[in-house]
Parts: sequence; C-alpha cells; structure tokens
Amino acid sequence: MKIRKTMEIEPQAVEADGASGAQIRWIISRADGAPNFAMRIFDIQPGGHTPGHSHDWEHEIYVIEGEITGIDGDGEHALVAGDAVFVPGGEHHQFRNDGGAVARMMCLVPNMDD
Amino acid sequence: MKIRKTMEIEPQAVEADGASGAQIRWIISRADGAPNFAMRIFDIQPGGHTPGHSHDWEHEIYVIEGEITGIDGDGEHALVAGDAVFVPGGEHHQFRNDGGAVARMMCLVPNMDD
Repeated sequence: MKIRKTMEIEPQAVEADGASGAQIRWIISRADGAPNFAMRIFDIQPGGHTPGHSHDWEHEIYVIEGEITGIDGDGEHALVAGDAVFVPGGEHHQFRNDGGAVARMMCLVPNMDD
Repeated sequence: MKIRKTMEIEPQAVEADGASGAQIRWIISRADGAPNFAMRIFDIQPGGHTPGHSHDWEHEIYVIEGEITGIDGDGEHALVAGDAVFVPGGEHHQFRNDGGAVARMMCLVPNMDD
C-alpha cells in the first residue's frame, strides 16, 4: 500500500477562471497507478470559492473540516464536516467558504485522459 | 447536488469471512447515479478488522478518525486521521483498529458491475 500524509503534500493554487482563495492537493492519481479515479483535497480560504462551472464528469465530495456553502441550480446548501455530496456530470456547481476558518474538502473525479 | 449526512446513514455489519467488528456505510454509489466509483465509510471497533484479502480492484482510502493499522506484504503501517492509502488491485491488505476508540475510514472502489 502507498501511504500519503495528505497535509505534507504541497498545495497548488487553483488557477481556473472564477476560483479565488482555493488550493488543491493531488493525493492519489494516475501517477500513483490509480487506474480509475483520483483523490484531491481542496483548501478554501475564508471568503474563497471554487469556480462556478459545469462539466461532463461527476464529483464525489466529502467535507473534512470547516463550513462550506454548496451552490447549484436549486440554491445554496450549508455543508459541514462529515457531509458528502454527489455532483452528477453536467450540473452547475460551486463551493464557497462563508466561515471564518479554512475549509477543507475531498473531491474525487474519474480519470479523464482515457 | 445530492447531499448525504454520512453519519445518518445506517451502518451494516461487514459479513465477509475474516472481518470482525467492522461496519460499512454506502455513501455514494450507482444507486445515486454515480457512474464510475463508489464512496463507502467503514467503522472499525477497537480490536476489530476488515478481512485480510486481495482482489482485482483498487482501494483509495482516507482515515477520518482513530488509529488504524494497515497490513500488507511489507508489514504493518500505523495510520492516523488525515492519512490516505492507495491499495492497488491484486495486493493483499487488511485494516485493524489497535486503538481504544472507534476508527473510521473512507474507502472508495470502482463500480464493479460493468
């Protein structure tokens, strides 16, 4: 088994248009030999957010810590640690930190280069 | 987005041969429309363990809380909250709770019925 101390992995700024105050750590991916899907952890600073967008692939999300507002076509949804979220492919979505501390969520995606 | 309060999902005993004191919650799966992979959370009671086994598919694991010993052909590995583990397909593995409190880990698998 390959063990990753997740917080020792260097975060990278999320550069996508519409992102602000968001960093990503790639935890498990094809580079580790993962054949089907990838595990990433996002940090979102207070007031920060991921891009509001949609794409063909799904997300499976788990809130690790902090308070996150999930936004979709139905409105705004308060999320806390221990909540999981399924975002189907094609659905518009965004995640925003309205809390006073860094929020952290795992977000898994299918491998997209095959 | 579909939101799951993970601890409100009823756990089921892990009935597999070689499991002891382990429960599983299915958080996101094909039943939710997830097309590629499934999110589950295991609770392992003190002294409990998952089966020691191998199979063709991989695991992507994240320790949510507690102390877990990961066992593979190389020996025993101490895991704590925030650690992630990639278990490639075909590798023998087992997870045991040597701590004094319930341990909890997320374990993701590819969908296996297609």
